[in-house]
Amino acid sequence: MNPLEILTHCDHTLLRPDCTAAEVRALCDEAIRYGCAAVCIPPAHVAGAKKYVGSRMCICTVIGFPNGYATAAVKAFEAEDAVRHGADELDMVANLSMVKDACWGDVLEDIQTVRRATEGKILKVIIETCLLTEAEKLQLCTLVSLSGADYIKTSTGFSTGGATTADVALLRAHCDPRVKVKAAGGISTLADAEALLQCGADRLGSSRLVRLAAEAEAAQHALPSSAADKDEPADELGEAGAGDGE
Amino acid sequence: MNPLEILTHCDHTLLRPDCTAAEVRALCDEAIRYGCAAVCIPPAHVAGAKKYVGSRMCICTVIGFPNGYATAAVKAFEAEDAVRHGADELDMVANLSMVKDACWGDVLEDIQTVRRATEGKILKVIIETCLLTEAEKLQLCTLVSLSGADYIKTSTGFSTGGATTADVALLRAHCDPRVKVKAAGGISTLADAEALLQCGADRLGSSRLVRLAAEAEAAQHALPSSAADKDEPADELGEAGAGDGE
Repeated sequence: MNPLEILTHCDHTLLRPDCTAAEVRALCDEAIRYGCAAVCIPPAHVAGAKKYVGSRMCICTVIGFPNGYATAAVKAFEAEDAVRHGADELDMVANLSMVKDACWGDVLEDIQTVRRATEGKILKVIIETCLLTEAEKLQLCTLVSLSGADYIKTSTGFSTGGATTADVALLRAHCDPRVKVKAAGGISTLADAEALLQCGADRLGSSRLVRLAAEAEAAQHALPSSAADKDEPADELGEAGAGDGE
Repeated sequence: MNPLEILTHCDHTLLRPDCTAAEVRALCDEAIRYGCAAVCIPPAHVAGAKKYVGSRMCICTVIGFPNGYATAAVKAFEAEDAVRHGADELDMVANLSMVKDACWGDVLEDIQTVRRATEGKILKVIIETCLLTEAEKLQLCTLVSLSGADYIKTSTGFSTGGATTADVALLRAHCDPRVKVKAAGGISTLADAEALLQCGADRLGSSRLVRLAAEAEAAQHALPSSAADKDEPADELGEAGAGDGE
């Protein structure tokens, strides 16, 4: 797959707690230049990024992130606040305590509360696969499909593991065909990215792919590339995550 | 220092994304039995814990946790929601992007927005020392002192490091005397705990201290101790944190 084609599926991501406004603007510039699907940034940076990019790039932010244990009311308020500030897409974290307690009705209601608050916007539900049993992953495929959300997403990038091809294939096989799959966390090569897309992912959350694709393009065409010149950006699973994700 | 005396300063903590209601109730039972200062639990567990403990234990929860990059409006809403559900104490995370951008007025306003929403409750401000320069720590001592918050807290337990005696001493020396210091993250022995208290900490956030103190007491008095019989609980810096905190 052409590296630039991979980037059309990429949510170019910067979620470090200490990221600066200048770093967010640079992320937006790269996403626009390389034709990414969206930038994925912290809620407090949405208003500034929206002002900076206007309608040139989709803005995705995170809700109840990364632990998922804000109350449903707070997640809904946070989602509304983000939409008001210019967010087009919302990546919410499911309530994993409710999953472990097998309170499936509460898990669904938590997601649907955010769904009702974000009509017309793209809603992705992060299930944090690395903390789940296979049975729990299947239950969540069912609940996310019922909830009216647009995507199921593997990982926050802040826990003990990231996206795997096995999980992406499982989610693709067990979710309603209307529900798309986003793989995130620890995607560290273009080959990883392509494998995840081939297993059924529609989006990839990553802080590295733009640089990797830019380097690959630059090598192929011997053209200068601003992104390829930069220091390695922190991966979504990097600074705060516990490992390299796989 | 007597191990049980150390526990009177301990916020007995369980902040794993996948903690169950039964684990939270067991935490409450231990905190009551051993005379802890508070339990520190996820927002979505506050209502259940309040119903369980009534007025027998202070309930502390976390706001904008652990990354601190929810908007001020969302942090304030989350704090009000937590108080409505029974929280007595709120540990909010400061906006570290604003710190790195040196937008000091915005950092202060972020804290004060939560302060105004939580009058009469104890407010602690987590500054995540492991991500800060010495100059930034000093600036935050000033701002937290100005904000009307009750405590400055070293760490979330979810980043690259936890509480150190050097940081506690620095915060104690540079905050207004009215502002207390909470040390959290990676406190792994009773000797660590005592050293942090002697450097000026008034509270300690830990998931381990109750077990350690119970074991020490049991060894001393040869009395049975339910907490000492249990498997090691996950430390606040354990599951999701990137290291052991020091």
